[in-house]
Amino acid sequence: MAPAGVAVANGSGSADTTAAFKEVYSKLKEEMLEDPAFEFTDESLQWIDRMLDYNVLGGKCNRGLSVIDSYKILKGVDVLSKEETFLACTLGWCIEWLQAYFLVLDDIMDNSQTRRGQPCWFRVPQVGLIAVNDGIILRNHISRILQRHFKGKPYYVDLIDLFNEVEFKTASGQMLDLITTHEGEKDLTKYNLTVHRRIVQYKTAYYSFYLPVACALLLAGENLDNFGDVKNILVEMGTYFQVQDDYLDCFGDPEFIGKIGTDIEDYKCSWLVVQALERADEDQKRILFENYGKSDPACVAKVKDLYKELKLEEVFHQYEKESYNKLIVDIEAQPSKAVQTVLKSFLHKIYKRDK
Amino acid sequence: MAPAGVAVANGSGSADTTAAFKEVYSKLKEEMLEDPAFEFTDESLQWIDRMLDYNVLGGKCNRGLSVIDSYKILKGVDVLSKEETFLACTLGWCIEWLQAYFLVLDDIMDNSQTRRGQPCWFRVPQVGLIAVNDGIILRNHISRILQRHFKGKPYYVDLIDLFNEVEFKTASGQMLDLITTHEGEKDLTKYNLTVHRRIVQYKTAYYSFYLPVACALLLAGENLDNFGDVKNILVEMGTYFQVQDDYLDCFGDPEFIGKIGTDIEDYKCSWLVVQALERADEDQKRILFENYGKSDPACVAKVKDLYKELKLEEVFHQYEKESYNKLIVDIEAQPSKAVQTVLKSFLHKIYKRDK
Repeated sequence: MAPAGVAVANGSGSADTTAAFKEVYSKLKEEMLEDPAFEFTDESLQWIDRMLDYNVLGGKCNRGLSVIDSYKILKGVDVLSKEETFLACTLGWCIEWLQAYFLVLDDIMDNSQTRRGQPCWFRVPQVGLIAVNDGIILRNHISRILQRHFKGKPYYVDLIDLFNEVEFKTASGQMLDLITTHEGEKDLTKYNLTVHRRIVQYKTAYYSFYLPVACALLLAGENLDNFGDVKNILVEMGTYFQVQDDYLDCFGDPEFIGKIGTDIEDYKCSWLVVQALERADEDQKRILFENYGKSDPACVAKVKDLYKELKLEEVFHQYEKESYNKLIVDIEAQPSKAVQTVLKSFLHKIYKRDK
Repeated sequence: MAPAGVAVANGSGSADTTAAFKEVYSKLKEEMLEDPAFEFTDESLQWIDRMLDYNVLGGKCNRGLSVIDSYKILKGVDVLSKEETFLACTLGWCIEWLQAYFLVLDDIMDNSQTRRGQPCWFRVPQVGLIAVNDGIILRNHISRILQRHFKGKPYYVDLIDLFNEVEFKTASGQMLDLITTHEGEKDLTKYNLTVHRRIVQYKTAYYSFYLPVACALLLAGENLDNFGDVKNILVEMGTYFQVQDDYLDCFGDPEFIGKIGTDIEDYKCSWLVVQALERADEDQKRILFENYGKSDPACVAKVKDLYKELKLEEVFHQYEKESYNKLIVDIEAQPSKAVQTVLKSFLHKIYKRDK
């Protein structure tokens, strides 16, 4: 780790970093297509090639790129060696592969239509439920990549355990979301702040916020057992990020955020409905119970009107301010300036975002 | 490993072994329900509890039990210590968990109706496609179990790498099966012995035959790199086993094998259709092309008649005999008598089975 005060925050995805990152994708894909553990046919080579490009690419790669940025800050350098760059990019891609795996399977479970501006993978003709197996293959590629490039490193076991633990937390959070949101008859009384927080932390925060930093810490030779506080701060940040997401789903500009929110129609356990339930009187609760989770635009409008009546926009801005202040205090209590810089760079990427 | 000649083969699933094995399941399930990596709710505890019993139990546990039997033979003892029994049973259950994971997801992809005499998990009311996530959780449990009980053992990394490699091979075999069998229009010209062998080896043989023995070898302190021949023999045996399965699907007694074969209706790349294609003249090929993969019983009957006309029963019995003889020669070329005993015990469990 860099001595205190040496590190300088880099914006995520500078042109150089992005180019290096893309190059590593091509190499990793090539390796997956030449994996000696399977005798590929021409058909299966083409399948995997297309499946990877379709699902691993096309996102913003924030999670993956942030491994490289964080690693630079932790080392206190502006430029990494070729080897260091390659390893950091590789771990970044492992996170992107993990994300692809979750998205492919989540889209099937949610019966979604589009993802990243194109049809969900399982909706592509001739794919269908083969997408379930493709999801598994994406997950397996992570183990293949880690084995190929990190076996023999002193932190190999820690890396495997990290990905396993984060995947387990994510799948458990997804389970909680699925059984709370979809199981049986719709029952809003199941939704509250504790349930919301638990789903968000496990389903999103660990893999989106903690995992990239944990990868960078392992690359920098650190023992993750010493970074329990960092984990908690990042999970808090992830929670804050998801609350923003829930807020923007209803109050964001669809033109600007690039999608039309449907949390109300989809009966999602959104931060907004949870806050509304906390604040509603009996009459207002009735409105929620009668209109939440219905696709009729009149019902959606009634819910949105109630959100405005309950001043949830103000509640959100208040939450945002308090959350930010608390995170800053916690971050500045960190003994390492480099770690502080990493955490602040994450925070400033998401604070007061409007998309 | 036991000195040559000391070991004695045990039948799989003696009453004692089976009782010990069942007991370990309860303990492992309990641990999964108390995993500190997730904050369970009452609902999610009940969900996992029921999901595990429904999917991990109910099979014959041949794969799991054979870890214990093989380990005993390799050590040259009739009785294992309490600790050794626990570890062998735990690895056995990891294989059963892996099997459950594959079956839950395969049933979704194949749109199957029943499994082990009950509705497939995704067909249970209120489960549906949540079963996809349950499959992921089953896979994750294996990593959780290995970490809890094997981290710190000198073979921990080998164990993880083994499960990862076998899972990758299985998923790749499943992909090949899916894209060969389901993709686009039905095209029998894609089916041949090479394709059949490749699907079977990867999809079934590695996890069903190689994995249990490899687990026992690691427990016995062996380096798997020294057992390439053993791997090949077990994969051969797994292939032979699947060919039997394909044969019994058509020629077995449905009363006796407990299911009605539908490989012909399902357009499966079965050993029988591949053999028929090899032997058929142009007229007979036309019969196959016109009738294979149709659910009309008249079409199925025409295919079965052709199989009989081509004397595929004889071809199978010839294959069975040759395969057995070759396996015996290969097994007896093994330097270790204990390893020979393990391999022969596997072979004798499956040779000339009629269900």
